[in-house]
Amino acid sequence: MIIIGEKINATRKAIAAAIAARDEAHIIATAEAQVDAGADYLDLNAGDPDPAAEVANMKWLVERVQAHTDVPLCVDSANPDAVEAGLSLARAKPIVNSISLEAERMEAFLPVVARHECMVVALCMSDGGMPSGVDDRVDRARQLIERLTGAGKAVDEIIVDPCFLPVSAEAESARHVCDAIAAIRAAWPKVHIGGGLSNVSFGLPARKYVNLAMLAAAVYHGMDAAIVDPCSPNVVPIMLAGAVLGGADEWCADYVSAYRGGKLK
Amino acid sequence: MIIIGEKINATRKAIAAAIAARDEAHIIATAEAQVDAGADYLDLNAGDPDPAAEVANMKWLVERVQAHTDVPLCVDSANPDAVEAGLSLARAKPIVNSISLEAERMEAFLPVVARHECMVVALCMSDGGMPSGVDDRVDRARQLIERLTGAGKAVDEIIVDPCFLPVSAEAESARHVCDAIAAIRAAWPKVHIGGGLSNVSFGLPARKYVNLAMLAAAVYHGMDAAIVDPCSPNVVPIMLAGAVLGGADEWCADYVSAYRGGKLK
Repeated sequence: MIIIGEKINATRKAIAAAIAARDEAHIIATAEAQVDAGADYLDLNAGDPDPAAEVANMKWLVERVQAHTDVPLCVDSANPDAVEAGLSLARAKPIVNSISLEAERMEAFLPVVARHECMVVALCMSDGGMPSGVDDRVDRARQLIERLTGAGKAVDEIIVDPCFLPVSAEAESARHVCDAIAAIRAAWPKVHIGGGLSNVSFGLPARKYVNLAMLAAAVYHGMDAAIVDPCSPNVVPIMLAGAVLGGADEWCADYVSAYRGGKLK
Repeated sequence: MIIIGEKINATRKAIAAAIAARDEAHIIATAEAQVDAGADYLDLNAGDPDPAAEVANMKWLVERVQAHTDVPLCVDSANPDAVEAGLSLARAKPIVNSISLEAERMEAFLPVVARHECMVVALCMSDGGMPSGVDDRVDRARQLIERLTGAGKAVDEIIVDPCFLPVSAEAESARHVCDAIAAIRAAWPKVHIGGGLSNVSFGLPARKYVNLAMLAAAVYHGMDAAIVDPCSPNVVPIMLAGAVLGGADEWCADYVSAYRGGKLK
């Protein structure tokens, strides 16, 4: 399971303020809380309207977080220069978040992820927009895997994001995503599958329960990565339990190990 | 969704003591807590090694609980006389928990459930033991439905229990159950499917998370009934969220209604 802690993200006000003030203590506390809760990677989003400022912010984030933890990073930006800067400084093999089939994004990011030793989140999004149904998602996954492996990435360096959409707007979308996950898992046993999934509950009350049930169902169907808040109650345990039920955790070894490590309280 | 609150069960020490002492306040508090948490039915198990005592206990339980709530009951016993006593006193249409394909149990219970206006939990268990795999479960469901409808029950008066088994002993069993649920749902759209599922986590640590993930996955696949502790955190919300994702809750109406009723805190 690849659990990417999402909390160090400049779209969150407290994080944007901490970055602006170079408040290292706040960033490190946020990093450590996520690692303690079970994060395998830490997402770093230094988003800033000024591209040069974003590059500087990303460098600062990577350096400060790496000064305090060995947990690998997920360099999160739509700005190729910020991604390049993050990758150049990252010690352990990082993840890039994210590439997609959108022509401009593919053109800008493919050379970057090809040049660095890294994994990459590959969104099933194209210039035509979000995917629709099962076959469209599987076809887009195929295109992403072909482009990325063609550029030299290994299949297991790719995390296909099938695009979770609001179930309140399209009732079938959760089933489509789960069926697409199962089909992608069957076609490419070594590819990673996952992404951010809180969109699924958009427009509903008590969103956390819909997100938890989606995590369980998606992992049951073969998802093995997620960009989540690992500090949110039940998130990490439900993912690990879903892997037990779906058969991805042989002998329940990861589940029991997480329990022994204090991650299943 | 049919949520059957499992807590008034004489296999629990505090309940056995309350029944023995005719401690009505304890029983009523347990009933009310479950109803507040979202129970649609209250399971009553008055188990006693002495069959006559069990009948007397069951009568007392049914009368006392009905004096305080209109929520319908689930009469839970392996003793046909206790079931008969409970059914005779039940006001709202109750559930019998449970019949199975075991010859002795079928023979004893079929006339009882045929004679009364009631629903019935039908376990996919036979004299050959627990079911194994997907097809065996679907075949046993078919036999149960044939026997019960042959005796005059409607399909929607039957709750097929596919038998949840410990995933620690047989890794594939959770997938078998989910696939069987989907197949039974497809073959008999009106039958109810569900039962007690905490067995699934037997032998594992931090069982509650495995049970929650199983609830989400099973409801996603078409389960629409469960015998659970509705007071346990997340249980009712995760079931309702699973129905949203699986497409069983059109327009998310039940989910939003449960939120408005204070069941999704």
